[in-house]
Amino acid sequence: MKKFVNDPAQFVPEFMQGIADANPDLLSFTPEFQMITRKSGPSNSKVSVVQGSGSGHEPAHVMAVGPGLLTGACQGAVFAAPPVDACYETIKACASDAGTLVLVNNYQGDRMSWDMACEMAEAEGIKLKQFIINDDVAVKDSTWTVGRRGVAGNFFVIKCCGAAAEAGQDLDAVYAIADKVNNNVRTMGVALTSCIPPAKGTPIFDIGDDEMEVGVGIHGEPGRRREKITNADAIADELFDAVAQDIPFNSGDRVAIMVNGLGGTPITELYVLYARVHDRAEKAGYKIVRNYVGEYCTSLEMAGASVTILRLDDELEKLLAAPAESAARIF
Amino acid sequence: MKKFVNDPAQFVPEFMQGIADANPDLLSFTPEFQMITRKSGPSNSKVSVVQGSGSGHEPAHVMAVGPGLLTGACQGAVFAAPPVDACYETIKACASDAGTLVLVNNYQGDRMSWDMACEMAEAEGIKLKQFIINDDVAVKDSTWTVGRRGVAGNFFVIKCCGAAAEAGQDLDAVYAIADKVNNNVRTMGVALTSCIPPAKGTPIFDIGDDEMEVGVGIHGEPGRRREKITNADAIADELFDAVAQDIPFNSGDRVAIMVNGLGGTPITELYVLYARVHDRAEKAGYKIVRNYVGEYCTSLEMAGASVTILRLDDELEKLLAAPAESAARIF
Repeated sequence: MKKFVNDPAQFVPEFMQGIADANPDLLSFTPEFQMITRKSGPSNSKVSVVQGSGSGHEPAHVMAVGPGLLTGACQGAVFAAPPVDACYETIKACASDAGTLVLVNNYQGDRMSWDMACEMAEAEGIKLKQFIINDDVAVKDSTWTVGRRGVAGNFFVIKCCGAAAEAGQDLDAVYAIADKVNNNVRTMGVALTSCIPPAKGTPIFDIGDDEMEVGVGIHGEPGRRREKITNADAIADELFDAVAQDIPFNSGDRVAIMVNGLGGTPITELYVLYARVHDRAEKAGYKIVRNYVGEYCTSLEMAGASVTILRLDDELEKLLAAPAESAARIF
Repeated sequence: MKKFVNDPAQFVPEFMQGIADANPDLLSFTPEFQMITRKSGPSNSKVSVVQGSGSGHEPAHVMAVGPGLLTGACQGAVFAAPPVDACYETIKACASDAGTLVLVNNYQGDRMSWDMACEMAEAEGIKLKQFIINDDVAVKDSTWTVGRRGVAGNFFVIKCCGAAAEAGQDLDAVYAIADKVNNNVRTMGVALTSCIPPAKGTPIFDIGDDEMEVGVGIHGEPGRRREKITNADAIADELFDAVAQDIPFNSGDRVAIMVNGLGGTPITELYVLYARVHDRAEKAGYKIVRNYVGEYCTSLEMAGASVTILRLDDELEKLLAAPAESAARIF
């Protein structure tokens, strides 16, 4: 295992400490619950937005805490849901009179922890709503999922809800924005290699030297099929087609396009994919308003990429352009 | 070779096309010279700043073109200097009455191309100065270098010179800033794996499953020694000590600290290293004013990292904080 780690059991709190050390004016870190919150705390006049999931997907989720984004987030171990108490404490630490929107990516472990935490918090009178993100078109159900998985589209839900909350919209309105983004965003990914969770020390799946997993999940879950690696344009085409045909997107649509790296793929390769996706989107008559090329939702050091398309309207376009600040300088 | 590539011979122009496609309002791409320039062009009232080197180190150098940064840059093939005509055309495309500062990282190939290009441009009456960056403390001479190599410290030279040029400082003043940054910045890196240039198709060096190369160059050049991988804290300590003792940095120094990923290392591992470097810097009495954790100067998908420390004064601190815009959202 070739990694910069000390004790693998301390990997998550140690990198979270690094994130906190690097952002002393922006973030507070509570090691007990692997929780990072805004230094400024929640505002009672604004809706709070929280999230939390397994580690290994950074910059999601704790690197997305900050003004205009998440109010707070907690992380579980690598690829494991955060425990109920961490979710509950995150809701409590971020509670606002205006209410809290809890954004959950659709994995059974995350849903169970957040369901219980939300129930506990509501029993104490904390006002909240929960929203489930499920943008991955690859498969209907998956290893740890009933229904579609939540993947890189999560970024757009956070960005838009965070901006709406910052602008003073109420809980129902911020929830409606989450719903609008989720209804208009689709993603599919491909993996060229596995990755090695520090505490496991071995790859999470086996894959041949000439193979790729099309439609892979961000925890290495099987996708649509395993096949021989093709060239970048053919791969970009397959991801683009799967995403574009799902809603479907139509000529004339205003869109944001994301080419997301899974952790081990250099930025140059992502731009090779982007060049093709951009070309395909233009040929399909989409108006590309914004683009995002880089790492937004990763699987440790997995080599791979995903393509996300979000259909925009005036409201979403404005929310994406709103200022935001976080440990990740990607928003 | 597990990569998103089409024809390996077209890898560089294809990813540059992607960068240009993603930044249509910001950048112009000239495929003939693998050159990217600001869409707005040079300003005759402001000094231009240009650079160019081998590809494979992105976001350096073409992703650092934009207001407050480089005026233009050209790239050679992966790990190969740009040809003389590309350097010459970049100088010409960016020429300004206020003069041009040519920033060259210290590699023989780059220096030869830029020396000849500068001579040609000066013969045509273009006003310029050349500055050589050499921040890598690992080795005195190296495979392709007489003297120290230029590595991630280059980022700070670009940022400060670009900000000074934008503020209207003259050529001598911008050159003096390059010199000040270079005199006060030091870097050392470590590699856990090699990388595979697309056109080569095989690793650039062999390294054992339990080995690391301490003091590696960004083209895989040998460093100080090959040894068994130790834990993250011990690695961070070795890089920190090598850098800190070189100038040396002193208690009370105001510093910017960078933990740079070499391309294949996930952001979480960089934060594990940062946590230790931060701790060491605080214990040494440095005042950490800014920090940079992410990818600034890479070697394709190499797993590894480098630590850079820059000593700041009021002038450099202000230049680092100045606004800038580029394809890389890291400045």
